[in-house]
Amino acid sequence: MSEATTRFQPIGKKADTRAGSTLLAIAGGTGVPLESICGGAGSCGKCRVRVVEGMDRLTAVTAAEAKVLTATEITSGMRLACQAEVVSEGDIVVTVPEGSLRGHHRLLASGAEPEVALKPALRKIVLRMPPATLMDIRADDDRLLDILNSEAAITASLSHGVHRNMPRALREKSWETTVTLFRGEELIRVDPGDTSGELLGAAADVGTTKIAVYLIDLTSGKTLAHLSEPNPQIPFGEDVMSRITYAASNADGLERLHGAVISTLNQMLRTLCEDASKDLNDVMEVMVVGNTAMHHIFFGIPPEHLAAAPYAPAVRAAISVDPAHIGMEIYPFGKVSSLPNIAGFVGADAVAVLLSSGLHADGGIGMMIDIGTNTEIIVGNKDRLLGCSCASGPAFEGAHIRHGMRASTGAIERVSIESDTLDVRLRTVDDAPPRGICGSGIVDAIAEMLRCGVISSSGKIASGSTSERIRTGEDGRPEFVLATMDDSGGDADVTVTQADVQEIQLAKSAIFTGVSVLVKRLGIDYSGIETIYTAGAFGTYIDASSAIAIGMYPDVPVERIRFIGNAAGSGARMALKSVEARDLADRLSKAVEYVELASEPGFQSEFAKAMFMPHREEDRFPSFRRTKAA
Amino acid sequence: MSEATTRFQPIGKKADTRAGSTLLAIAGGTGVPLESICGGAGSCGKCRVRVVEGMDRLTAVTAAEAKVLTATEITSGMRLACQAEVVSEGDIVVTVPEGSLRGHHRLLASGAEPEVALKPALRKIVLRMPPATLMDIRADDDRLLDILNSEAAITASLSHGVHRNMPRALREKSWETTVTLFRGEELIRVDPGDTSGELLGAAADVGTTKIAVYLIDLTSGKTLAHLSEPNPQIPFGEDVMSRITYAASNADGLERLHGAVISTLNQMLRTLCEDASKDLNDVMEVMVVGNTAMHHIFFGIPPEHLAAAPYAPAVRAAISVDPAHIGMEIYPFGKVSSLPNIAGFVGADAVAVLLSSGLHADGGIGMMIDIGTNTEIIVGNKDRLLGCSCASGPAFEGAHIRHGMRASTGAIERVSIESDTLDVRLRTVDDAPPRGICGSGIVDAIAEMLRCGVISSSGKIASGSTSERIRTGEDGRPEFVLATMDDSGGDADVTVTQADVQEIQLAKSAIFTGVSVLVKRLGIDYSGIETIYTAGAFGTYIDASSAIAIGMYPDVPVERIRFIGNAAGSGARMALKSVEARDLADRLSKAVEYVELASEPGFQSEFAKAMFMPHREEDRFPSFRRTKAA
Repeated sequence: MSEATTRFQPIGKKADTRAGSTLLAIAGGTGVPLESICGGAGSCGKCRVRVVEGMDRLTAVTAAEAKVLTATEITSGMRLACQAEVVSEGDIVVTVPEGSLRGHHRLLASGAEPEVALKPALRKIVLRMPPATLMDIRADDDRLLDILNSEAAITASLSHGVHRNMPRALREKSWETTVTLFRGEELIRVDPGDTSGELLGAAADVGTTKIAVYLIDLTSGKTLAHLSEPNPQIPFGEDVMSRITYAASNADGLERLHGAVISTLNQMLRTLCEDASKDLNDVMEVMVVGNTAMHHIFFGIPPEHLAAAPYAPAVRAAISVDPAHIGMEIYPFGKVSSLPNIAGFVGADAVAVLLSSGLHADGGIGMMIDIGTNTEIIVGNKDRLLGCSCASGPAFEGAHIRHGMRASTGAIERVSIESDTLDVRLRTVDDAPPRGICGSGIVDAIAEMLRCGVISSSGKIASGSTSERIRTGEDGRPEFVLATMDDSGGDADVTVTQADVQEIQLAKSAIFTGVSVLVKRLGIDYSGIETIYTAGAFGTYIDASSAIAIGMYPDVPVERIRFIGNAAGSGARMALKSVEARDLADRLSKAVEYVELASEPGFQSEFAKAMFMPHREEDRFPSFRRTKAA
Repeated sequence: MSEATTRFQPIGKKADTRAGSTLLAIAGGTGVPLESICGGAGSCGKCRVRVVEGMDRLTAVTAAEAKVLTATEITSGMRLACQAEVVSEGDIVVTVPEGSLRGHHRLLASGAEPEVALKPALRKIVLRMPPATLMDIRADDDRLLDILNSEAAITASLSHGVHRNMPRALREKSWETTVTLFRGEELIRVDPGDTSGELLGAAADVGTTKIAVYLIDLTSGKTLAHLSEPNPQIPFGEDVMSRITYAASNADGLERLHGAVISTLNQMLRTLCEDASKDLNDVMEVMVVGNTAMHHIFFGIPPEHLAAAPYAPAVRAAISVDPAHIGMEIYPFGKVSSLPNIAGFVGADAVAVLLSSGLHADGGIGMMIDIGTNTEIIVGNKDRLLGCSCASGPAFEGAHIRHGMRASTGAIERVSIESDTLDVRLRTVDDAPPRGICGSGIVDAIAEMLRCGVISSSGKIASGSTSERIRTGEDGRPEFVLATMDDSGGDADVTVTQADVQEIQLAKSAIFTGVSVLVKRLGIDYSGIETIYTAGAFGTYIDASSAIAIGMYPDVPVERIRFIGNAAGSGARMALKSVEARDLADRLSKAVEYVELASEPGFQSEFAKAMFMPHREEDRFPSFRRTKAA
C-alpha cells in the first residue's frame, strides 16, 4: 500500500457516522474532504477510495462504478465514495489516494518533505576566551582559532567578514562570542555574545514561471515564512529556450536576465524577513534550485550552450558562491549555494525532487516526474537511476491552448462529461465563473471527451454529432464547448478545439515516450513502476486517472501515484537543513544515468505511436482496454 | 667582511690611475663616487674606505683622519679616501661601506632583493581536452576537472569566475584552454587557448607616508614597472595614531581611510598597466605589506584596538581576500593577499623587511631596523629572533623640527662642521639652495655639533660661544645656524634649535632603548651585532657614523651597517613570487618573540640614560670615548 494514501476509519469510534451514509458523506464528516464534481452521480470518478477492511458492510458496486472503475480497480477494492453506502455498523478502513482529496494541491502546495536530521552546513559555536592583556598579547585571529581548536577541535579558515568584525565582536560582550562555521571549515561570521538561538537560511526554487522562497529557522528546521512570485524573466521569454536565445543574442542579455531574478529574489527575501521580523543580514545561506538554464542564468553563467547539442551544462557540481559575486543582498560573507545539476535539461530542481521523493532509497522501481515545459523523468530505485528530459511544451501551463490560462481564479480545473447527454460538470479555481481552462482542466476534458467518444483515439473530434456541444469553430475545425458565455458571463464560450487536442497529444506523447525509453532501458514493464512521484504545481493539480486515460502516464493503479507538491522547494529546504542531504544529492547527480532522447534509436516511431490516446499499442494500457470492454 | 661593502681595485689595470692621486679621485674615476661634503678637507668623514691590500702604497694616516676616525677603525685599515694618496704603483684593494657611497640611497631605492626561486602562488596550466559530443556529454566543470586531474594530478575547486567563463573559454579555441590555479588548489581563472606566456601580479608597500607599487611579470620574475605616491590618507592624519583616532572617532572614518588607499592603489595599478601595455584585469594577485594599522585599514578592519594596551591586532596571519570585498579592481576572482603581521606595532612590512634582509638565515647575530614614526627592530639569527617597536616619533621625517622638511629638493641632507671655525659645509637634495633640513641632515648636524662641542652630551647648546653660528632664537633659547637667508635665498635662516636637539634625543633614545632591551634579552653585547640591516627611505639616507655618534645605533664598525633600501617592497615582491617565501614569512611571523617595551622592567631608566649622546654610560660607546680621547 502506497504511503501516499490517507487512511481513515469512518465508522465505529465516530458518533456522527451511521448506516445509510455514503463513504463520501462520512469522509467529509471526519475532515477528509473528497473530490467530487458530479454531485454524487458516480460519473466523475474523482472520489475513488480503496476499502481495506469492512467491504461487507457496504452496498455492492453500482453500475456507475462499473463504468468508471477498471476491473482491476474493482478487484482490488476500489470504490467511488459517493456510491458506496454503509449497510451495517462496524469498522470500515479505507485508504484515500491523494488525487481523490479535494484541494490536495493546496494542502500540499509547499511540498512533501521527508524528515531530515537537522545538520545544516551552517553551525554556530559559542566561545568564551581569555581577554587580551599585556601578558597575553595574541592577535584576535590567533586567539579565536586557538580556542576553537581547543574547545571544538576545529581548524578553520577565516572569511573576510570575520577579519572585519572580530575586534568588535570579541570585546563587546567581554570575550564571549558566537562564531558561524560553513561546512565545519570556514569561519564566515563572528558575533558578540551568545547568538546561538538564531540561525537563518533560505531555500529558493527558481522555476521558469514561478519563484518560491522559504525562510528557514535552522535551529529548529521550521519554515518561518514563504512566498512565491512570478519569475520576472517572463517578459524576456516565456520558456527556457526563448530566454537562452535572449541571453545569447543581446549584448547585455544575460546580465538583464540575471539581474531580474536576483533583484526579485532579494526583494522576496526582504519581504520574508520583514514578515518574520528578521534581519536580511542574518540570512547566511540561500540554497537555490532550478532547471539548468535557470541555474546558469541565476549564477550569471552563459546558458547558450544548453540550447545546442550536446547540451552540456557549464556547471554540474553543487556550488557555493559569494553573495557579492552575484549581487545577493544577504549576509555579505554568507553563501549562495545550489544543488548539483545532472544534465543540460535535468537540473538541480530535478535533483531536489529526487531527494524529496525518496525514490533513490526505494527497493521497488519508482518514477519521479516533474511536469513543465520540459518534463524531467527519473525512473529506478536504490540500485540504478535513469533520467531524461522531455520537450513537453507549455500546453499544460495553459499556453498554446485557445482558451488556456494559468490555474488562477475562474480557471476550469476539473471536468466531468455525462456519456449519454454530453452534459458537462466543471469545477473552477475559487469556484468562480469559468473564464478559461488550465492544465489539469484540459487533461480532464480530453480524458472525458475520449471516454464519451467525443474524440477518437487518434484525437479527432467527432464532427457528426448531434450535440450542440460539438460545433465548428472559427478555424473551420470542430470544437467542444465546455462553458458558454452564459455560464461564464464572459466574452466568449470556453471550448476545447481540435488544435488544443493536438497540442495535448504532442505534450503527452513527449512524456510517455520518455517514460517508455527509460522503462525499456531498465528492462521492466510499465506495471513494474510501483510508485509515481508527481511533482510540481501542475502535477499536483492533474487528475491521475485522466492522465492515464489520455496515455500521458503509464497504466498503473491510481493509488500508486503520489503527489509530492513543490518537491523542488522541499528538496532545496532539505539540502539547506542537512549536509547529508547535500552529499546525497551530489552522489545522486553523478549516479543518475542521463538518457538523451534525441539520440535514442527508435525515438521518432515511439513518439508517433504515443500520439494516440492512450496509445497505438493498446496492450500497453490494459485497464483502458478493459474499461472500454466493460 | 660584510657583503654590504663595495670592493674596488683602483690601481693596476686602470690606465687613469697614477701615483699622487687620492683614493677619492681614483674611486670617482672608476665609477664608484664616494660621499664627501668637506671638499676633501678630511673633516666630514663621509668617504671612509677600508684598505684590504696595498696599505703600504698609500701615504700615512693624516691628522685630519686621526680626528675623525676611531682608533679601532684606523687599526682595522679604515682611511678617509680624500686623505690617502697613492705613493707607488701596484694593486690596492679597498672595500667601501655602503654609507660612503654618494647617492647610494638612490641606487638602492627599490630595495635589495635576494634571489628567490620563482614559484608564485599563481600557476598556469595549458589543457587540451576532448570536445563535448552526444557521446561524451560531460558538463564543462567535470570535463575540466577530469583533465586537470589526469594531466596534472591536481584536484581543485572552481572559483565563480571559472563558472562564468568556462563555456566560452573551453570552446573558443577548440577545447584548448589555460587555467590559473591559486596555491595549487583553487582554479581562479580559465582563458581560451594557450596564455601561459603571461602571468601578472603586483606587490605593494603601503607605508604611512608613501605607497610603492610594483607590477611583476610572474613568468620571469621581472619588475615591469613601478611607481610610488604619497599615501592619500595623510590629510586624515600624518601618523598612524592620528589615523587610528580618525577611524575610531568618525562614523565613516574607517570607510574613508580605506576608500582613499584602495582608490589610490587602483589608480596606481591602472597607470602601471598602461605603462607596461597590460590589462588590469590580467593582474591576478596583489601582495600587500604595511604596518599593522595600515594593513588593517587597507583591508577595512577596524584599527582602534591597536591604539590601546595590549595593542592586539585583529589579524596576524597572512590572508588572501576577494578583490570585490575590498574594492580592488584587478581580476575580480583574483586575490589580494598580505604577509602576516607580528604584533600591533610590528606589521607585515617588518616581516617583509626581515624576509628580504636574510637575517633569519644568518648564523651570526644581526639586527634589522626600519626607521619611521614607529621604528621596528628585530635582533637575532636563525635560532632566535626578538622584535619590538619603538615610538621614535616623526622627527626623522622632518616633523616637529623647526626647519624640518621631507627629503625633497633643497633639503639639507649632509652636514659637516669645521671644529675650529664652526664653518658649515652642506649638501642638499638636488644640490639646490638650502630650504630646510631633512632627517639625515638633522642627524648629521647634531652629530657634528656634538663632535665640535657645540652641544654637550646632555644636548645643551653651548650658549656662551663667540661664533655667530650660535645665537639666541625666537624662543629665547640657543640655536645653531646651518644656513643663512643669504645662503638659501629664502625667507629665513635654517637653524637647529634647542627644541630640535631635544626631539632628536627623544627619537634616538627610543630606538636605542629598543635595541638595548632586545640585546639584553638575547644575552649579547652591542658589539655582538655582526650586521645591521637598515631599511626604509630614511634608513638609507642616514649617515651611519652620525647615527652612531649621537647614540641612535649601537657602536659597531660602520661597515657592518647594510642599507637594504625599500626592503618592505622587496619582501612583498619575494612573497608574490614565491610561496616558499610566504611559508617562511608565516613561520617567521610566529617565531619572532615580540617584546612589549612599555611593560619591560627598567624601560624608563634605560630610556633616560639613552637621552644622553651617545649615552650616559659611555662605556657602551667605546669608540666614541676613544674618539674624544684622540
